[in-house]
Parts: sequence; C-alpha cells; structure tokens
Amino acid sequence: MPTSSVSGSGCASKDVNPTIGMVADHDTIVAPATAQGGALAVIRVSGSDAIGVCDRIFRSRAPLAGTPANTLRYGRIVDGERVIDDVVVALFRAPHSYTGEDSVEISCHGSSYIVGEILRLLLAAGARMAQPGEFTIRAYLAGKIDLAQAEAVADLIASSSRAAHALATTQMRGGYSEELEALRDKLLHLTSLLELELDFSEEDVEFADREELRDTMQRIGEEIERLRGSFALGNAIKEGIAVAIVGAPNVGKSTLLNRLLNEERAMVSEIAGTTRDVIEETVDLGGVRFRFLDTAGIRATDDRLERMGIERTLESLRKARIILHLVDAERVAEAGGCPDLSGTLRKEFGKGYTPDAGQRILTVINKTDKTPAGFCLPEGAIGISAKHGEGVEELCRALRASVDTDALYHGDVIISNSRHYEALTGAREALHRALEGLNEGLPGDLLSEDIREVIRHLGSITGRGVIAPDEVLQNIFSKFCIGK
Amino acid sequence: MPTSSVSGSGCASKDVNPTIGMVADHDTIVAPATAQGGALAVIRVSGSDAIGVCDRIFRSRAPLAGTPANTLRYGRIVDGERVIDDVVVALFRAPHSYTGEDSVEISCHGSSYIVGEILRLLLAAGARMAQPGEFTIRAYLAGKIDLAQAEAVADLIASSSRAAHALATTQMRGGYSEELEALRDKLLHLTSLLELELDFSEEDVEFADREELRDTMQRIGEEIERLRGSFALGNAIKEGIAVAIVGAPNVGKSTLLNRLLNEERAMVSEIAGTTRDVIEETVDLGGVRFRFLDTAGIRATDDRLERMGIERTLESLRKARIILHLVDAERVAEAGGCPDLSGTLRKEFGKGYTPDAGQRILTVINKTDKTPAGFCLPEGAIGISAKHGEGVEELCRALRASVDTDALYHGDVIISNSRHYEALTGAREALHRALEGLNEGLPGDLLSEDIREVIRHLGSITGRGVIAPDEVLQNIFSKFCIGK
Repeated sequence: MPTSSVSGSGCASKDVNPTIGMVADHDTIVAPATAQGGALAVIRVSGSDAIGVCDRIFRSRAPLAGTPANTLRYGRIVDGERVIDDVVVALFRAPHSYTGEDSVEISCHGSSYIVGEILRLLLAAGARMAQPGEFTIRAYLAGKIDLAQAEAVADLIASSSRAAHALATTQMRGGYSEELEALRDKLLHLTSLLELELDFSEEDVEFADREELRDTMQRIGEEIERLRGSFALGNAIKEGIAVAIVGAPNVGKSTLLNRLLNEERAMVSEIAGTTRDVIEETVDLGGVRFRFLDTAGIRATDDRLERMGIERTLESLRKARIILHLVDAERVAEAGGCPDLSGTLRKEFGKGYTPDAGQRILTVINKTDKTPAGFCLPEGAIGISAKHGEGVEELCRALRASVDTDALYHGDVIISNSRHYEALTGAREALHRALEGLNEGLPGDLLSEDIREVIRHLGSITGRGVIAPDEVLQNIFSKFCIGK
Repeated sequence: MPTSSVSGSGCASKDVNPTIGMVADHDTIVAPATAQGGALAVIRVSGSDAIGVCDRIFRSRAPLAGTPANTLRYGRIVDGERVIDDVVVALFRAPHSYTGEDSVEISCHGSSYIVGEILRLLLAAGARMAQPGEFTIRAYLAGKIDLAQAEAVADLIASSSRAAHALATTQMRGGYSEELEALRDKLLHLTSLLELELDFSEEDVEFADREELRDTMQRIGEEIERLRGSFALGNAIKEGIAVAIVGAPNVGKSTLLNRLLNEERAMVSEIAGTTRDVIEETVDLGGVRFRFLDTAGIRATDDRLERMGIERTLESLRKARIILHLVDAERVAEAGGCPDLSGTLRKEFGKGYTPDAGQRILTVINKTDKTPAGFCLPEGAIGISAKHGEGVEELCRALRASVDTDALYHGDVIISNSRHYEALTGAREALHRALEGLNEGLPGDLLSEDIREVIRHLGSITGRGVIAPDEVLQNIFSKFCIGK
C-alpha cells in the first residue's frame, strides 16, 4: 500500500530505458518540463494526437481541437467530475512547434501531486512518457535542427556562465554546422571528380588535378586542426577552468579558496595537514567559470590518510589547466632578496609531478601582510594576503586574463563536445591517409574511399548526409533533461 | 570580482524584506515562476507596463504592444546585439490575467544563467523584483479572489497528497468563503435590526425578537464550532498525519519505518539504543500523507545523549495523532496466552507520558515470524513481521481507516489554516459574550457591539468587508513562493 512519490523532471536523470528505441514514431509523448518546487509547473505534450489527448482531460469554453495555433486557453484539468487544477494551456500546431508536431504545454500550479495527477491522466488518455531528450530528437528528425544544434540545446540548459552560454549559443545558431557543411561540400566535390575517373579508368584521365587536390585537402586539414585545437578551451569553458591551488602545508590554500568564494566552504585550521580531500568549488570570474581545486598540502608523511590526500593532489594536478602555486612570503624573505622560484615548485612536488607543457603556472606569494623587512616580490609573481584580501582582485584578473574569450564572443566556432572532438580526430586520420595515398600516386577510387571516410566523420557531427545509428542518438539524447 | 550566482525562485524562500509594503502599487513586477533545474523556465512579468518592459528586450515579427491577448509569440530576448535566448512569450491583457493586470510569461531554456540574464534585463528595462506572493496579492487586491482563496493557492502548491489537494481545492473554489459570507450576512441582518432599536431608544421597541436572536446566534455558534472542530483533521491532512512509532528498545521500530518507506532511511542495528534522534519520514497511504516519527527506544539509561533522545520521544508523542505501540511477539508469548496490553504502554512510558484523549493507540505485535509456540495475538492488535513484511499491508489499511476523508471528498468545508482557526476562536468568544449579554437583557446597542466583533473575526478570514491591515497581508503572503 505505501506508494512512492511521482518522480519529477530533472536534468540529472540518466535512467534511460535502453530497450526503448528513439527513432521516429508518432506516439504522443508527455513529460514535465520544469523542475519540482516552483510556483508554476509546465507539462509538455507532443505528437500526432497531442491535441486529442489533452481535450480528453481539459474543460474550457471550447475544445482545443478548434482552437487556433499559438493561443492560450484558460480551463480546468478534470478527472471525470473531479477538478485537478485550473490551468493555462498553450497550443502549437505542426509544423510551427519545437518538435514540428502538434504540441500542447499545460501550465499548472507547481505541486508535485498535481503534476503527477495530470501526467497520470494524460497517460490514461493515450500518451506515453517521453524519454530524456525525446522532444529534441523529434525536432532533429523533423529536420528543424541538426545533431550539433541539438547537443547545443543541452549545453545551453546546463550553461552557468556567460562564456559557456556564448559557446552553446554559437553552436545552436548553426555557425559550426555551416562551417562543417562547407568542408563537406568541398570534399564531396573532390570525391565526385575522383569517382568520375573510375568510369573512365581505361582511358587513364585525371579529372581531379592532383596539385589542386593536395592544396584543398591541406586547407581542409588545417581547418580540422584548428577546430580540434579549439577543444581544449571549449571544453574547459564548458566544464569550468580547472585551477589547482598547490603549495606547502599551511601556506594558506584553504584560506585563499574561502576568500575567492567569500564563504567558509573549506575547513581552515592552524594545524598543518588539515585538508585531506580535494575540495572543488566554482567561482565565476568575468563570465568564465573557474573550478578551484584546493589540495592537500604536499609533504613527506607517514600518515596513510594524508598520503592518500597527496595522491589525490597529484591526480587533480594532472587535470588542471592552471596551477596556482602558493608560497609563504616568509619563506621568500628567508631565501633573501628576490629568489628565483622556478625550482621551488619542483622541489615541493618532489618526484611526484612535473607540470605539463600546456599547463600555466601562476606563482602567488601569500601572507604579504606580515612579511619581514627585506621582502621582495619575485618577478612575475602576485603578492596577496588571502586572510585580509589584498591582491586577490589582481589575482582574479590574472586568472581571467589567462582565458582568451575574444574569439568566442566574436562568434568564432569553438568546439566543446568530446563526441565532435573524436569525429574530428577520425576525420584527420582519414585525411592523413588520403594525403599519403595521393603522394604515393594511388588511383582515384582508392583516394576517394579515404575522403569518403573524412566526409562520414564530419557528417556524423551534424547528422546531415549520414544516417545516425540508433546507439549514437541514444547516447546523445540520453544526457538530456526529461521534458526537453 | 568573484560574483555570486543568481538566486533562483523557490517556495522555501522566507527572506522577505519587511520594509517593503505589499499594498497596491502598479509597479511592473518580475520573478522566476519555476524552480531551477528543469528543461524550461518561466519568468513572470505583471503590471501596468509589463508589455512595454518586455518589448524593450524582446525581438519578434512584431512588438507585443500590438499583439492580441492570450496569444503566444516566438522570438528572442536580446541584450543590444547579443542574443540571450530563443523564447516563447505568452501575453495576457488586463483584466483577463491572474493578477488582473497586463502580464507576460517568458518561457526560456532552463539555465540559471539565462534566467539570471533575462531577469537582469527586465529590471534594467523598468521592472522590479516581486516579493513572495506578490502576484497573488495583486489578484486579491483586484478582487479576483479573497484572502482564504489566496491562502488556498499556497496550500495547493504545497499539496503533496490527494487529501491535501482536495482540502486546498475546496477552499480555492470558494466553498468555504460562501459559507462564511452566509454567516456574516445573517449576523449583519441581526446587527442592523439591533442598531435600529438605538434610533428608537426612547420608545423602548425591540425590532429584533430576542428568542429568534438567541436561536440564530446559537445556530451560528454551532456552525463556528463545527468549523473549528474540523481544524484538527484539516491541519493533520495538510501537515501529514503524525504517527509516533513507540516501544521498548530493539523491538524493531526502525525496521518497521524502513519497511513502510521501502528504503533504508533509518539506521538499523542490533544494538539497543541505536536511534538517538527522532527520524521523520512521510508516506502516502491511500491519498493521505502520514508522517512517521521513529523514536528513541524508551528505557532507563544513564547516557546523557540517550536521555535527550528519550526527551524528544516524549515531545513527538505529544504531537502525534496516532501512537503506534510496537511490542515484541516474544514478550507477548512470555506473558502467556493473550495478555491484556493496556498496561504495557503505560509501563513502557514510565512516568513520562500519558496518552491524550484525542490520540489513537494502535497496538502492533512485531516479529510474528519467529514467535514461540503458544503465542496468541491480543485482541485489537495487529501482528506483523517488519523484517519480512507480513501484516504490514493490514497495518497500512488500519492507519488509513483511522482518517475519515469522506466529508472532505464530498466537498465539505474543512479548515486547515491556523489563522482561520484563531479567527473562528475569536468569533466564538465574541458570540459567547453576546449570548451572555442577551441572557442578561443588555440593550441592543451593546449586543450589537459584540456581534460586530463576531462579524469582524469572520470577515478577517476572507478579507471581505474588512480592510486587512498591511501586517496581516505581509504575514499571509510572505509564506508564498517567489513568482506566485
């Protein structure tokens, strides 16, 4: 008899039933489109019978069936005689809706009970629950958006900073897709010329000028390289720029993190070795999200727990884009004058870690408020007092300046999706093979095969000109919210 | 430079600025109406300049200003040249909107960043943030609903069971308000007759027949009494029926709670005295929400923490509507035959607690799966195995049967709001004074004063015929969600 509560919508949902295919059917689907806990809730209905299904449970002046598109209607959701809620219904008609199908959005009071009851009635009236992303997959199948745009919808919903928002917006507007289409068109033109040679193979003609071919392929290769190269920034912007705060024990790493967060998230104490776990917190600096990783102080220790903490430090170091190396001002003063700190980091890491070439190291001298006489700020370092706040603004500016978002805000295409990165990598390899074949004087039909593979890889990004296998769709859309 | 994230909507918000009055202004107000974390978010705008404010940041085929009421328009929210989001806008025009004012609902992608940006732009365009409940207070001030109905809106949003939903729905539909209006009308008629006597005071006439007056007042008193009496049930349904699970240590209280919840909420162990804190969990049984209070095992102990737990047990016992007394089957068998358990509860409570007359005690014998021979279920008790589940269905049915919701589902008025209860109590007292005065032969004008007080108390519930002071409004609406 105990009944479980109705599960609400939510973007964290990853419980997808893998046995239900995502391919085109015209079932009428339904899902809550808003999270639990607001004043309003919206329930989305879409499909060939969306209007009919709603009319079965909606009472108003007149049925929805005769209502013009793009209008609002006030009425009641009823279960027979029982009134469930007063609602406002928004009516969209195919093809002028998000999915391209007839669609209804029911706006009701934001009670989980009411949402549950309306969903129950809609299911009883002939709809079925939508899979995560199923509304968007329909938009894709209806040709309203391509796959890259569909993925951008999910990124847009998840975006929590100006930069991540710009990234998703550019991708959703189709700038990226256009760029890919242009590359594909060029390649298609090349293959058609090469394949024409096949028809005339006995005559040994070359429709495709080999020099021109090499030129074009190289230019395409450069473009692919540029896109691949943008992934590091794009992904960092999407996920947040990882900044590892490292330094000797008790140098003030947690205090700095607290200062950056303006709150007491990390546990601070005077005892060296307080921080045992990697604490991650995000802060928005000038429209870019930074993920600060406070790390366990690195030092030789016999404590097993503390050693584990140090292991984790090294791991988070590897993932960081920026290493913020915190040094105690007193130690700098002890070293005398303006010491060269380039060796200090290595000494502090011991044998455990060597910074990556792609990682930026920012040296920050802490506790400048109580420096002894004779202290001198080493060149390139930033002096701060994490405790009192001096210099922290300058540090934030330096961090923000390390991420160049100009290209992003000017609408340049920056990729941020690992699926796209993999496709571009596949395209690059196939293109490389094709270029090798060209140098070896391979015949047109063999060259064409490799170029077709490049086309296939590029096409898989937008899903245009390629039939995306069900698993791919499943994989993309299962990461969506229910109701989107 | 670190910026804090935009605070979202939410019904838990109680941070109301008490210095901002809630009384009628025609400011254009704005608030997110949905919770964070869904596929969609809705932002509500209402006020005399709602359409103008939106037109400043919305780009579409044509401005909203010329758009007919009750229509949807697709377009973009822009910040100058920068596109924030593709949105669908719903347009309502005064007086045909929730608030009675021009209103716009912007449906955007459910990203906290996007919602924050749109709010920022709306504020810059001339709107101000709405206080919690401010949309509903405008509906009240526009005469679209009365105070009791407005309160029902908040209850409806909070409703999480069929019974709580029915309670709020009846109140929102105005059934309650009509009943109160009828009482008020009768009383107004009486006072007008009594006050007429005043004009003829020198002639010593009685326009109001004293017998009829007494009759009417008594009938009104009975009706007030009935409404007051319904509060215990109404409040329990709204808050959830409190069931205290009590019994000797290790009798299986936490195991039963887990069984009821179908999940491992409470920490279960073999060690007596495991449960130190009162754990509260809600379960929906047949449309009614029950709040189960697992309590620390009651026993003599020197442990200070455990004694505190026992103190809390006694406290939660006082609040419970049902006391579920769990007894170990083995102890029943040891007692031999079918023992009378009426004394057991008292013995187990010690001197600490005597059940209230209004509390129902349900004796439940646990561990029936491993009862020794000769065990016999005492009369009126329910035998269960919390561990294996036998008998738990029967227990749930018994719990559900203890709450009579028939009246509720037949549309009877049941009050659930403590403000209303207090008003009815005030009305009852004033009516009592008036009846005493009548018995003592007081003149009409003095009687009339008391009756006017009854009217005032009843009127304060709906807010009709009374000007509700600002503090009262503040108090009622501050409990609302932002965006409602």
